[in-house]
Amino acid sequence: MFPERTAVVDTTRSPYARLRPIPAGAVRLEGGFWQARRAANTAAGIPQQFDILKARGALENFRRLAAGIEANTEDFVFRDSDLYKWMEAAAYALLDDDPQTAVIRARLDEAIDAVLPAQGADGYLNTYFGNDPSRRFHNIAVDHELYCAGHFIQAAIAHHRVTGERRLLDAAIRFADYLTTVFGPGLRQEPPGHPEIELALVELYRETGERRYLDLAGFFLERIGIADFTRFEGHAVRAAYCAAGATDYFLETGDPRWRDGLERQWDDMVRTKLYVTGGIGGRYRGESVGTAYELPNQRAYAETCAALATIFWNWRLMQIAGEARYADELERTLYNGALAGVSLDGTRYFYVNPLADHGQAEGDPWYPWARREPYQRQTDFPCNCCPPNVERFLASLPGYFASTSDDGLWVHLYDAARIRWRLADGTPFTLTQHTRYPWDGTITLAIEPERAAEFTLYLRIPAWAPAATLTLNGEPAPGAAPQPGRYLALRRTWQPGDRVSLALDMPVTLLEADARVPETRGSVAVQRGPVIYCAEGVDHGGADVRFARLDASTPLVPHFEADLLGGVTVLDGAGWLLADESPPPALYRPRGQRPPDVLRPARLRLVPYYAWANRGPTSMAVWLLLDGSGI
Amino acid sequence: MFPERTAVVDTTRSPYARLRPIPAGAVRLEGGFWQARRAANTAAGIPQQFDILKARGALENFRRLAAGIEANTEDFVFRDSDLYKWMEAAAYALLDDDPQTAVIRARLDEAIDAVLPAQGADGYLNTYFGNDPSRRFHNIAVDHELYCAGHFIQAAIAHHRVTGERRLLDAAIRFADYLTTVFGPGLRQEPPGHPEIELALVELYRETGERRYLDLAGFFLERIGIADFTRFEGHAVRAAYCAAGATDYFLETGDPRWRDGLERQWDDMVRTKLYVTGGIGGRYRGESVGTAYELPNQRAYAETCAALATIFWNWRLMQIAGEARYADELERTLYNGALAGVSLDGTRYFYVNPLADHGQAEGDPWYPWARREPYQRQTDFPCNCCPPNVERFLASLPGYFASTSDDGLWVHLYDAARIRWRLADGTPFTLTQHTRYPWDGTITLAIEPERAAEFTLYLRIPAWAPAATLTLNGEPAPGAAPQPGRYLALRRTWQPGDRVSLALDMPVTLLEADARVPETRGSVAVQRGPVIYCAEGVDHGGADVRFARLDASTPLVPHFEADLLGGVTVLDGAGWLLADESPPPALYRPRGQRPPDVLRPARLRLVPYYAWANRGPTSMAVWLLLDGSGI
Repeated sequence: MFPERTAVVDTTRSPYARLRPIPAGAVRLEGGFWQARRAANTAAGIPQQFDILKARGALENFRRLAAGIEANTEDFVFRDSDLYKWMEAAAYALLDDDPQTAVIRARLDEAIDAVLPAQGADGYLNTYFGNDPSRRFHNIAVDHELYCAGHFIQAAIAHHRVTGERRLLDAAIRFADYLTTVFGPGLRQEPPGHPEIELALVELYRETGERRYLDLAGFFLERIGIADFTRFEGHAVRAAYCAAGATDYFLETGDPRWRDGLERQWDDMVRTKLYVTGGIGGRYRGESVGTAYELPNQRAYAETCAALATIFWNWRLMQIAGEARYADELERTLYNGALAGVSLDGTRYFYVNPLADHGQAEGDPWYPWARREPYQRQTDFPCNCCPPNVERFLASLPGYFASTSDDGLWVHLYDAARIRWRLADGTPFTLTQHTRYPWDGTITLAIEPERAAEFTLYLRIPAWAPAATLTLNGEPAPGAAPQPGRYLALRRTWQPGDRVSLALDMPVTLLEADARVPETRGSVAVQRGPVIYCAEGVDHGGADVRFARLDASTPLVPHFEADLLGGVTVLDGAGWLLADESPPPALYRPRGQRPPDVLRPARLRLVPYYAWANRGPTSMAVWLLLDGSGI
Repeated sequence: MFPERTAVVDTTRSPYARLRPIPAGAVRLEGGFWQARRAANTAAGIPQQFDILKARGALENFRRLAAGIEANTEDFVFRDSDLYKWMEAAAYALLDDDPQTAVIRARLDEAIDAVLPAQGADGYLNTYFGNDPSRRFHNIAVDHELYCAGHFIQAAIAHHRVTGERRLLDAAIRFADYLTTVFGPGLRQEPPGHPEIELALVELYRETGERRYLDLAGFFLERIGIADFTRFEGHAVRAAYCAAGATDYFLETGDPRWRDGLERQWDDMVRTKLYVTGGIGGRYRGESVGTAYELPNQRAYAETCAALATIFWNWRLMQIAGEARYADELERTLYNGALAGVSLDGTRYFYVNPLADHGQAEGDPWYPWARREPYQRQTDFPCNCCPPNVERFLASLPGYFASTSDDGLWVHLYDAARIRWRLADGTPFTLTQHTRYPWDGTITLAIEPERAAEFTLYLRIPAWAPAATLTLNGEPAPGAAPQPGRYLALRRTWQPGDRVSLALDMPVTLLEADARVPETRGSVAVQRGPVIYCAEGVDHGGADVRFARLDASTPLVPHFEADLLGGVTVLDGAGWLLADESPPPALYRPRGQRPPDVLRPARLRLVPYYAWANRGPTSMAVWLLLDGSGI
């Protein structure tokens, strides 16, 4: 194990990054919210996924290629990437103490043993296109060859960082070197159709110091033209991966044209195309973000991979200058849109993440194959991109908790955790967080530099906490006025034994959307801390909660339920449900002639959105109609 | 010409039909609203469509087959049906006086001359599958073979009814006879994947008296199981065609099980899945109606063919007992959801009919082929089902105006028209309508039976006319109290020269949708007479009218604009537009902290929805936010 080297994005020497990584292996989650998620991922999700990938032929494809058997062109063109993402997940999982890690290690080696012999002598590797050079790169916009290459490189870097072994990394270098002989000025000019290679090439540059990988990433990004984009458009995952790769490129090169372009896209995304859960992708067609304000709830696409992609992007944007707005969006997606993608037990997944559902089967007499069972997570999908993507992210999550900078130490995420790392000047420290976050906003941080040291401790004050307070060693901290949506900077000479206690207030907040979003008018979403809530039919006698009304004059009272959904804070309040769910006598009526809906008073219970659909098929709604909204 | 025989649905001898057809050829439109539409169809649309079909290879496919050249399996599997629908359109167009009819007749003969030689000796005819019996009917759920057969039969019946010629009809009979040797009890059992054959077989039974065609239709419908459906689900066109075919079957057989099942589906459609324009299909995926209340405006699919399909269905339901609710829905779709499918000049078409649009291009850097130019009608589509479907419907429209029954004469649609037909007892009559409908609700009907005759004149009082009045020969008619949504029955001995004057009030009505429709909360749609209105950006200085607010306290004033959009009544009113269309600072804000939108007062002009997008790319909205709605 080389936990020292397990940065998820290694900006240690990036000239345009203010933040420097604290490696995943330096952060130990201890009994809090995310440890439970990661434990399920390591103990159940990752091992299960290997079996699924095997059953879907992901390893066999490589073995066939190595044995000279005809390529399995019946499979998806991007199947290799599923295995690569799993390998990245498995590599990060080795950092854990879990007894499963020995099993995961053996499976990871089995995968590597299957993959490597399939690589061509020239470095090319793709089981769909095989090793006949004449079959390669015919349709770069569609064929995912560069996408698969990117995931191969990312898996190899993670494997090398965690284990110190070079065999995967050397293969990735050979592949990347080959790519530099195919694409570039005077060579093939087509831009990749599905970005991913750019992220990988920049990280490979960081890993190896070889400038040609960075240049190739820049070449692809120039060919795509992302620096000139004015909007965040099209296929959600591709758009966000591309933006993340371009941010990586900016961190190394610093051209303000890139930063301006990324800023325009980010603004467009968060101001017009972002679900309140942090999901993106309002349109099934093309898996795309659609147009501004196109944010349907029941027909949200909001692919799990797209939520992860925005986390990757926001993380990279944070590295530039430590701006809290990116961390706020990262946290929004982390606790909601991304986490909803996996079941509490870590074994079932959503590809599509709606913000409302009727909880029933959908029939189609004409397309029997389009019949939909009541919406539930699945163990896998024919196009199985999301499950191993969630797994690699959860496995690497400790790497997203904190950073250093030349002047100090940054805490981005709060959870029970112990961080052992060193300041920019080399001073070792331990930072321990004690908290029941996200259910409780009190975080006690024990700062233990090995020796007294002057530095700034940057604590993220989330935008949702309007009245945070802070004490230092039990006393009010002089000059420390937490501002929501900013990092609070505490500069002093820190002594071993110093204690900071941060109290983030967690009011239950009713959120409204801009009136240009057609589906949410007259409705509110409910947030407490970083958690977005929803109503589920199962808590309301099977009622269709899409038509519930929230009584805004009755407080929603938080209450921790230890035995519910793995332990969650629920919100109990009051409102109304439809007394009769049968269809209305007429869908359209003259204004003023529509009879008021017949409602029955009801206690309403809200649960965290991420935990929905863990209790069987049920209706669900994030946005709740308000009584008195004139509706 | 045999105008006597040109019933669009020949219920003359249908035992379970109360209404009897008045043939299309017995109704002459005279200078009103629909004559202009039909003239454009005959003079421009139908001739142009023939050229398009030729260019797309629709005739060549038949010639190749007849010449024994390999089938063109690169083309759509349902291409033949496009030509058949055009042939049906061309046949009905021959009823017109238009100078184009000679040209159309020649082209129709050219089409028939191409089609007939391709028919197999056993009667089978499909250019995609050719005449090798081993290639047929492998995947009935997908392959549209029976769908194409249905359109062939319908075209043949129309051709026979209009021209009296038998050569197409005889070929259709041979094909139908062949089908009875392939499908049925003890034979192939699979249900058709795309209904249409059922409608055709019942009509062929009506045309020939051969019971086996009716039985085969019933067999298909039983295999689909439509009598037991509890909801209107899935692919919108298929669902409505199937229901229309089942209604035809009921009209001949009278099994109440069928009527109950159809009633359930119709209720489900109009109470939960119908756009205010009469369009159906809220979901792009599967071109389907989606689930209850899934009625997005901008992302409405609302295929033109689906609107036509509900007209076909409602017309057949009307035949059972003359219930006005079906006529009301037929009219809603006729003037709005269906008519929007064709440009004012009759040459450009919508496949998808949104109820809102931003009027701009949509980009997708990752799927360049998914880039969308500003939304406009097109002359044709690769999948070109809608244009010839509109054309055949418009050509046959006179057949939908009126009916007879054992006890009288029914007027369903109002427009300047002259109907010459005979009562059930054989008494010839002329009924002349003088009206500026739909812009004016006054209709003067001159009833001229050849001799005095006692019968009931049934006049449709639309549901949107709450205070209709009527005079008979200038005097209040005794006992005649018009009720909205009913047929007014005037029974008396009618004399040549009798005049009825019906005044349908046309208030400007603001419609609300049931609150369960997520997208229309706080908004109204505006209707006057049968016409649903919309706002277009082109009338508002290019503003994005999706975000307009209507001032409900200022009346919307109707005003006829002779030079606008072919002559329309516009509605002029007041409201507000966004003063600044740039995205909001934040998409989500705590309730009460969202700054009110900055609005600027504006005059608002509404135009008929059917006429939108006839003045270049522009934003459009049917549903308008109300001021004071709390949004």
